[in-house]
Amino acid sequence: MIDRLIEAIQKTHAPICVGLDPQMSFIPEEVKEKAFRQYGHTMEGAAEAIWQFNKAIVDAVYDLIPSVKPQIAMYEQYGIEGLKAFDKTVRYCQQKGLIVIGDVKRGDIGSTSAAYAAAHLGTVTIGEQERAAFGEDFCTVNPYLGSDGVQPFIKECAAHGKGIFVLVKTSNPSSGEFQDRMVVGDDGQTCPLYELVGKKVDEWASDPTLTGKHGYSAVGAVVGATYPEMGAALRRIMPKSYILVPGYGAQGGTGKDLAPFFDKDGLGAIVNSSRGIIAAYKKAPYAERFQAAYADAARQAVLDMKKDIEESI
Amino acid sequence: MIDRLIEAIQKTHAPICVGLDPQMSFIPEEVKEKAFRQYGHTMEGAAEAIWQFNKAIVDAVYDLIPSVKPQIAMYEQYGIEGLKAFDKTVRYCQQKGLIVIGDVKRGDIGSTSAAYAAAHLGTVTIGEQERAAFGEDFCTVNPYLGSDGVQPFIKECAAHGKGIFVLVKTSNPSSGEFQDRMVVGDDGQTCPLYELVGKKVDEWASDPTLTGKHGYSAVGAVVGATYPEMGAALRRIMPKSYILVPGYGAQGGTGKDLAPFFDKDGLGAIVNSSRGIIAAYKKAPYAERFQAAYADAARQAVLDMKKDIEESI
Repeated sequence: MIDRLIEAIQKTHAPICVGLDPQMSFIPEEVKEKAFRQYGHTMEGAAEAIWQFNKAIVDAVYDLIPSVKPQIAMYEQYGIEGLKAFDKTVRYCQQKGLIVIGDVKRGDIGSTSAAYAAAHLGTVTIGEQERAAFGEDFCTVNPYLGSDGVQPFIKECAAHGKGIFVLVKTSNPSSGEFQDRMVVGDDGQTCPLYELVGKKVDEWASDPTLTGKHGYSAVGAVVGATYPEMGAALRRIMPKSYILVPGYGAQGGTGKDLAPFFDKDGLGAIVNSSRGIIAAYKKAPYAERFQAAYADAARQAVLDMKKDIEESI
Repeated sequence: MIDRLIEAIQKTHAPICVGLDPQMSFIPEEVKEKAFRQYGHTMEGAAEAIWQFNKAIVDAVYDLIPSVKPQIAMYEQYGIEGLKAFDKTVRYCQQKGLIVIGDVKRGDIGSTSAAYAAAHLGTVTIGEQERAAFGEDFCTVNPYLGSDGVQPFIKECAAHGKGIFVLVKTSNPSSGEFQDRMVVGDDGQTCPLYELVGKKVDEWASDPTLTGKHGYSAVGAVVGATYPEMGAALRRIMPKSYILVPGYGAQGGTGKDLAPFFDKDGLGAIVNSSRGIIAAYKKAPYAERFQAAYADAARQAVLDMKKDIEESI
């Protein structure tokens, strides 16, 4: 899957991932009203609004980008109906040829992580049948529980040709509270916790059976665009890992912050933007030009983001 | 909710939580066969088997215990149908008067954590309606992203009278990989990461609006029974937090390991057992006596666990 991702990035010249995080406030009134007329102010109504919104965005941008990253929390808050919209979105994007990164940030003790890994990357066996639940292509994984919480995901990567991005340094303001603490590593050297997690990611990524033909592993990492200096250090620590970079745009990361995340060959990183694309129509410079044409605004925002990254790396 | 939990513990004399983690291998053949006859070897079939299994266990033990802890991963792996079984289980347990701890281990950046918190503890606003998705009473939270990832859950605790248990020291073998690393705290003192997280939990728990009439906060912690010495230190560091203790039974924790987690008044901790109860019928000493009567075996295992804890604390 990492090879497919790299080839899709090369083909589109866009190391970009559109975050499908449809907060209700991002969805235009007329989309919501139509859904509510049909289903009322119910979970079904909210889920229908999300689905119609996502579909229009995907239809407008799918030819420009390699991948999307639906954030499952935005669906989970609408319960079963919301998760049906997540499921439908994953399948629709895959039909459109997009690679789907499920932003699920799961992680638990071994046997439980195995269930999460089955849910998002693998299959379950029911009697004589093998069935897939959500079936994303990649998912994000929380490392706080250590190796036995991550290994079940790696196992599914190997079995089903999938990939993961392990949280190393997240993009949010308080990520440093624990992640930046100085710790003593196995080698006796002191380093911030995120570097220690980065070294562990490199260890996991070094299994040759996980390495694709472009030299990158199925085990990648999440490092926030909001911390470019840490990104540079982590790029060196994890040479085999693709870095998923959230925090570009709305969270404050800019094009010039992105260079350190990429390798010399222009590979090695994929940058996510969520509200900067899907809610572009609500803000300058798109609001005036596109008004309610949110899908067209999203397309223009992707083109602008692509240009910004091209000029920066 | 923390007051309701404490009063339910006092009433049942059982600081016990039954983990509803229905792995397919725990479910008796006849339960599965019946479900598969009805729905085939499908996700619906698996979900029906899980639901029937859970219902029988709950019916057999609900009068003995204050709370249950369904592990959402075990449901999520069966997709939408599995999550419907999770939802049905949560509601059924609440109807039976049980307090439901959703073991979801969610955690993300602020706006995303807010969506998870709404999904599991709070409500969403859809047009003019306020609706709840899964509506557990408590949920577990992963702290790796720091305060802004945890605060949205605390906000829902305050708004809806719910509670959380933050992962501090997990019960699995590799939990020490990151959690046990020596770090430098704000006070310049060196301590293991889990203690630093524990201090943060104590800070969050110290908000007086979150404190119930028994002196405990809505913000609790998860500390594994498999690490009793760390439990003793964390008990001191987090005096206002209830500790949810997984790892008893199948994972190796025994009654005598539990004393350090409790306060002198016998409060302060609630011990979870999952397979030790729900799959008791498969193992000695229950297998011979109960054979396929899995619900009766679960009841006996709860009674034995209650006795083991009573003698130990």
